[in-house]
Amino acid sequence: MPELRFNLVTKDWVIMAPERAKRPEDFIKKNVERGQLPPFKESCPFCPGHENLTPPETYRLGTVDSWQVRSIPNKFSALSREGELSRQMDGIKRTMAGVGLHDVIIENPLHNGFPAVIPLAGMQDIFRTYRALYRQFYQDPRVKMVILFKNNGAAAGTSLEHPHSQIVGTPVIPPQIRYRIEEAQKYHDDTGECLYCRILGEELKDRNRIILETEHFVAFVPYAALTPFHTWIFPRRHMASFDALTEAELLDMASALQQALQRLYYGLDDPDYNYVLRSLPDPQGNIEYFHFYMAIVPRLTKAAGFELGSGMYINTQLPEKDAEFLRGVRIPDKLE
Amino acid sequence: MPELRFNLVTKDWVIMAPERAKRPEDFIKKNVERGQLPPFKESCPFCPGHENLTPPETYRLGTVDSWQVRSIPNKFSALSREGELSRQMDGIKRTMAGVGLHDVIIENPLHNGFPAVIPLAGMQDIFRTYRALYRQFYQDPRVKMVILFKNNGAAAGTSLEHPHSQIVGTPVIPPQIRYRIEEAQKYHDDTGECLYCRILGEELKDRNRIILETEHFVAFVPYAALTPFHTWIFPRRHMASFDALTEAELLDMASALQQALQRLYYGLDDPDYNYVLRSLPDPQGNIEYFHFYMAIVPRLTKAAGFELGSGMYINTQLPEKDAEFLRGVRIPDKLE
Repeated sequence: MPELRFNLVTKDWVIMAPERAKRPEDFIKKNVERGQLPPFKESCPFCPGHENLTPPETYRLGTVDSWQVRSIPNKFSALSREGELSRQMDGIKRTMAGVGLHDVIIENPLHNGFPAVIPLAGMQDIFRTYRALYRQFYQDPRVKMVILFKNNGAAAGTSLEHPHSQIVGTPVIPPQIRYRIEEAQKYHDDTGECLYCRILGEELKDRNRIILETEHFVAFVPYAALTPFHTWIFPRRHMASFDALTEAELLDMASALQQALQRLYYGLDDPDYNYVLRSLPDPQGNIEYFHFYMAIVPRLTKAAGFELGSGMYINTQLPEKDAEFLRGVRIPDKLE
Repeated sequence: MPELRFNLVTKDWVIMAPERAKRPEDFIKKNVERGQLPPFKESCPFCPGHENLTPPETYRLGTVDSWQVRSIPNKFSALSREGELSRQMDGIKRTMAGVGLHDVIIENPLHNGFPAVIPLAGMQDIFRTYRALYRQFYQDPRVKMVILFKNNGAAAGTSLEHPHSQIVGTPVIPPQIRYRIEEAQKYHDDTGECLYCRILGEELKDRNRIILETEHFVAFVPYAALTPFHTWIFPRRHMASFDALTEAELLDMASALQQALQRLYYGLDDPDYNYVLRSLPDPQGNIEYFHFYMAIVPRLTKAAGFELGSGMYINTQLPEKDAEFLRGVRIPDKLE
């Protein structure tokens, strides 16, 4: 019989319907050709030597001629960099000026430098850039929330090949996030503990949904995973903000994310995916109810009318089986 | 400059970024070949004469040999028809038995009988079936919420060609829906009016987002439409439940939905879409704060990392322009 599981963080019920399960191999789409991409492409504005095709940099690691990571304002920004916060009410119509920040992070010079195949040092440079921009964005008084994410592949919403992530500073706290905050606060009021610390503790005790562990991070498939191979990466130490990481923790997080992405890359033949950072601003470091984390969402299935209409999810893959599969993926020895 | 608009019903902020707008024609994907489908397909289990390939009917209009609409339990049901409600708590793990109902509605005998091209009488038969099943499902004491929807095309989550809809009875009220209910209640507490009645009134006054009107229904693009060509169809009369429609209103709703789908079919060359019914059970007819409606969501864009991470949407199409385009679509004279 199918089973409904409740995701305490998102407050979603997920229908686990393993009767409809596929083998992990059946998720592999043979049309993915990222493996054939060259290290350099003449027509790519993100490849080295084409820096003049992009807007001026907002951040860079390395020199102008030899950079490791660089960020630029998004040419097709969803929000305007110029302008003041302003809000309008006209009857029941609520409008705000669409001001904010929106950068693209070019993750490395290689057109085919995917997170799963670059050296760890490259991944660490990406994380150094993430943190620098995260801080830079929160310096802007118009920015209320910073959303950091990566779209990898067409099913994840991008057609750009060159490895890149994005960071957006919005002039509002999105209601979806405020709702999660409120729920986490309620749990904390109720129990005096951080819901996320509790979840992490239970996962480490159960062990059957753990994918991998590093010194400071744990990657696991959530008990009520919304979609197949849905992965969460939690810091072991309680902190509400990504910004609170020590240098050692930051570098370790780069490694944890890279290892989790390698499991997908080698286990499911480089699926399309999104990852997003879920973090609150917490300059004083005193938010007890929220715990920052990263979510990886492989885009192997499509939300259909049932999900749209109910907000519930149907997951045909058991989290325990997904985690077992990902634990077993063999990562080839690094080329050097 | 982009503009943020607030969707009062879903409590979502939508970034309207018309600088990135496409022409409506640019959304047309030439790979849609539904127009070439035959009226009958030997391999289709939903085509007439193949009734023995499906589970026994749960409802039928017409005779066994000559039916107009029939419904059957979904072979790949997300929920089990058998079994009792039960709930388990183990630490922070919340689990329920996955019991409930899940039917497929075969909309008509024709393999290519799409809603936009069938006679109105056929659409009315579909709506009669919807209502019969809606009532049947709520008779089951395990069913707390009925979700009625259609997935049309691969981008909307189906690969089955034969026109069909689905109806699911879940053993919980999904939190997404409870959240909307609570917000509607708060608005009603605050103002003494139904938020949806108010929205409809404003739309009829503004007029620039109206797509079409029938005697009892109004189709319009919401002020803060989440996606391009997103359409809502509201009954003019206040009622919280689909079940409260009079016979005349039910038939008129079939016409309103068909006309709205025809605008998409002929204007955007038969795009993939979902539609969902948003309705509460209200046997006494006394829920003042909620108003049932239908939402059509053409699947022309993909939610990416930003939407996943923020719960906000970016819509490149202005609702006023989308409505203007849809108003102007020419529907060919009916063949007969």
